[in-house]
Amino acid sequence: MSVVTTPSTSDPAVDFDTAPDRYRHWRLAVDGPVATLTLTVDPAGGIVPGYELKMNSYDLGVDIELYDAVQRLRFEHPGVKAVVITGGLERMFCAGANIRMLAQSSHAWKVNFCKFTNETRNGIEDASEHSGQVYLAALNGAAAGGGYELALACETIVLVDDGSSAVSLPEVPLLGVLPGTGGLTRVVDKRLVRRDRADVFATKTEGIRGETAVRWGLVDEAVPRGRFDERIAALAADAVARSSRPDGVAGVRLTPLRREVTADAITYPHVRATIDRTARRVDITVAGPAEGPPDDPGAQGVDYWPLAVTRALDDLILRLRTNEPELGTWVFRTRGDLDTVLAHDAALGGDGWFAGEVRHYWKRTLKRLDVTSRSLVAVVDPGSCFGGLLAELLWAADRQYMLDGVYEDVDADAEPADVVVTEANLGTYRMGNGLSRLESRFWGHPELLAAVPVGERLDARAAEELGLVTMALDDIDFDDELRIALEERASLSPDALTGMEASNRFVGPETVETKVFGRLTAWQNWIFVRPNASGPDGALRRFGTGQRADFDPKRV
Amino acid sequence: MSVVTTPSTSDPAVDFDTAPDRYRHWRLAVDGPVATLTLTVDPAGGIVPGYELKMNSYDLGVDIELYDAVQRLRFEHPGVKAVVITGGLERMFCAGANIRMLAQSSHAWKVNFCKFTNETRNGIEDASEHSGQVYLAALNGAAAGGGYELALACETIVLVDDGSSAVSLPEVPLLGVLPGTGGLTRVVDKRLVRRDRADVFATKTEGIRGETAVRWGLVDEAVPRGRFDERIAALAADAVARSSRPDGVAGVRLTPLRREVTADAITYPHVRATIDRTARRVDITVAGPAEGPPDDPGAQGVDYWPLAVTRALDDLILRLRTNEPELGTWVFRTRGDLDTVLAHDAALGGDGWFAGEVRHYWKRTLKRLDVTSRSLVAVVDPGSCFGGLLAELLWAADRQYMLDGVYEDVDADAEPADVVVTEANLGTYRMGNGLSRLESRFWGHPELLAAVPVGERLDARAAEELGLVTMALDDIDFDDELRIALEERASLSPDALTGMEASNRFVGPETVETKVFGRLTAWQNWIFVRPNASGPDGALRRFGTGQRADFDPKRV
Repeated sequence: MSVVTTPSTSDPAVDFDTAPDRYRHWRLAVDGPVATLTLTVDPAGGIVPGYELKMNSYDLGVDIELYDAVQRLRFEHPGVKAVVITGGLERMFCAGANIRMLAQSSHAWKVNFCKFTNETRNGIEDASEHSGQVYLAALNGAAAGGGYELALACETIVLVDDGSSAVSLPEVPLLGVLPGTGGLTRVVDKRLVRRDRADVFATKTEGIRGETAVRWGLVDEAVPRGRFDERIAALAADAVARSSRPDGVAGVRLTPLRREVTADAITYPHVRATIDRTARRVDITVAGPAEGPPDDPGAQGVDYWPLAVTRALDDLILRLRTNEPELGTWVFRTRGDLDTVLAHDAALGGDGWFAGEVRHYWKRTLKRLDVTSRSLVAVVDPGSCFGGLLAELLWAADRQYMLDGVYEDVDADAEPADVVVTEANLGTYRMGNGLSRLESRFWGHPELLAAVPVGERLDARAAEELGLVTMALDDIDFDDELRIALEERASLSPDALTGMEASNRFVGPETVETKVFGRLTAWQNWIFVRPNASGPDGALRRFGTGQRADFDPKRV
Repeated sequence: MSVVTTPSTSDPAVDFDTAPDRYRHWRLAVDGPVATLTLTVDPAGGIVPGYELKMNSYDLGVDIELYDAVQRLRFEHPGVKAVVITGGLERMFCAGANIRMLAQSSHAWKVNFCKFTNETRNGIEDASEHSGQVYLAALNGAAAGGGYELALACETIVLVDDGSSAVSLPEVPLLGVLPGTGGLTRVVDKRLVRRDRADVFATKTEGIRGETAVRWGLVDEAVPRGRFDERIAALAADAVARSSRPDGVAGVRLTPLRREVTADAITYPHVRATIDRTARRVDITVAGPAEGPPDDPGAQGVDYWPLAVTRALDDLILRLRTNEPELGTWVFRTRGDLDTVLAHDAALGGDGWFAGEVRHYWKRTLKRLDVTSRSLVAVVDPGSCFGGLLAELLWAADRQYMLDGVYEDVDADAEPADVVVTEANLGTYRMGNGLSRLESRFWGHPELLAAVPVGERLDARAAEELGLVTMALDDIDFDDELRIALEERASLSPDALTGMEASNRFVGPETVETKVFGRLTAWQNWIFVRPNASGPDGALRRFGTGQRADFDPKRV
């Protein structure tokens, strides 16, 4: 990855490209069906200047490498069935997010950092649950804060029992903030630790070790150092034996993304984003496939259209979120042949690990949209190809505008746009709340969902009637209505929009994931901007100075 | 209610006592089984100076009256089966929370105001659901913001169809904040409005009226003015016909609370709070009943022990929350005869509307604790009587400390404390997440819950073994451990504790109620402290000045 400073924000611009031979902090070693990810953070390798990454503490750059490794394990290593995450230092597995980094970072940077690291941990859980690639945390030393939260994302946590190594969440007592990557939620809702014990644990700077950590459910096993490696190997072998992952299959190399970046556009082979800084808007167009699905998608590798689109959109979302915070509205369009999209959609539903990995990756990328704090608008007009997997973009958006007919003064002979719902829209790409986007859309109205015909071309009238789009308008009204809506959006409070959208996007049931992104993130955002954390006398700023934080004692 | 300024905070101190003959803003009229609550806000009747309550806008004082009315309807009016909420002005039902009040209020005041109003609206839903007292919103004019949110708490919403009266949530577009009393959540999760329509609605200052409001699910009916009263009467009659509420029963007068307030204590007949400002702590002791349950609880009225304890604790929670924000830790103890408590607990489980109302009131009061942003600690020691309904206080607390044995140097001959779980602890007093406090405590471990014996006296060892208390310690360690824990608590960031406790207290499933108090409140808290809302150029401050707010456009 690399960093330059952009004019529009005081935070550095980040890019998310990396590869194992460029890692500075992680080492990825593959030994047959078992991979080992070893964290040895280069203290001088911070993604921005101003702090040293001591004691295996991390910043965004460290996590970009982890994300890259998790992705490559799924695509490049079909034969890997168990992944051991461990540390390369003596006695310290990982100290969590670097505190000086947090203290010097802007609010937006901290929030974005937490969001990305959360997504990476959800990706680890996704691999264990859906991909037969089970993660094991081998805590060969202390796991503090984000270090323990990384372990919490693994299916099994083994802590070395050496009389001193502990797991801990010292954020509340030391820093006056919350654990930023889902620690509180996973302790009570995933590890099912009793809430009073969670309270004790999360206020105990030194954490909990050994047998007590096991009894409370904070870790699965505490193993003496002498038997540690052997036990980890045995657990990895167990995971391998249980895995659904295929044998003897060739992986798909994640070669560098093709991407062109200019001042007002980011362009990939199938995705193009154009930036209007005055309007504070990005127009994102996803192009459909030029050809139908191949007989052997794996042979196309990263050029397989669904994978190429997914990679581009994933990268684009990350770049826009991190580097372009002032572009508050993202407008999605598609261009291409709807039937060819539908052919790909159907083929992607087939068996095989590669199709499965592409589906899960598309699912994870759509989930990034769901938790993106930007207003998302979808526009359906002639030439568009919103069907099946691409139609998920429609319903990921906060609103859908569909042109009823054609732009008479542009091309009176164009074909009006249709939308097509496929089986893939009924559960393949579930949101963090466990529902499909259509289930969320029709939450509480199963009869409306049941009335949506699958596989049929639906014109603007039909789509509006069925509730698939917010409004269908003819070309006399369409442009005005859309323009006014986008201008209005740009005029509203960015913060209020963030809160409103976070609320509207997640109706119905909640999960660990939605609790982390909804409840916990919201509290953390609040705490981050309070003087008790981030003020000059707050806990984050005072940490390490020898001075205690000076708190406003009012409880709110 | 009355207001004085206390030394410990710049916000005014509030008391919550009122009665219908003292209402300035609401009128309660009872006509057989139908009650009508009419809102005609006295513009000059603000609870603090600095704003006029124009257009039926409200502040905390208006809502204190509403809360009082809702309580009295349940206890004093057993025969009331339907409650119509309507407005006393022409064309404006209610304009929501007063904006100048919000603009001039401290962060803590705004947050506390939203919490109380949320609880009152939950109480309205509780009456409709559990008490056969069904609320109907008769919107005889526009219902904006909090005015519409009040309607959302009613079972049925009827809007006058006069070509102009609309329902609206203009908070996002006008004020740069979220609707503060659950509006966003109830629109999508209770009224089941489609999320893109919810987005349009909550950004549309002028709101939505007539047939569209019905079609989108924002209201149940839109009725022309000429037929409005008749239709409301018919709907009220329907509700009356369906009600489970008894006939011909005498109510229980909610006579003024007996309460003595000094600088460092608040005392009620069965509840006493002593304040240690240096330690920033309140010690709250609940006294058990002097006698066993009476044959006719209704005859005892407000002196019926469970009701007296509930009323006192309800009042105490509200006063401490609002008036004593710096007292960050509340320590609960009980004193009394455990067997007599258990006899009351058993009797309270009986039939009859009065017992039912007391149970629901105790449930609602315990729920106030669950959403109270203070650290809650329970202490079990000799003389305590934590059994059945009182044991709920134990598990509402963040931690439970139990003395194993007696204080040897105080009274070596005392009886060690026991704890008793009763049937009432298994579902009578459910939390906002729909679980009993014991289900929440043992979330994910049904076998541990099943192992808890019902009706048995459990000593400290047994209680600890069963997981009913955090720790059981003998008197050599007990005092030190508790003292250190309380001192430590007082040293931590008040904000981080608020976020941590909000997370730990609500494991497992989420409901409209937990979403409102967890997710939505957290986002609102964040938005309230951001300059875009509350800064000198923010939307709240600029409202009504003719100047537009000056937003930082960064999305976070």
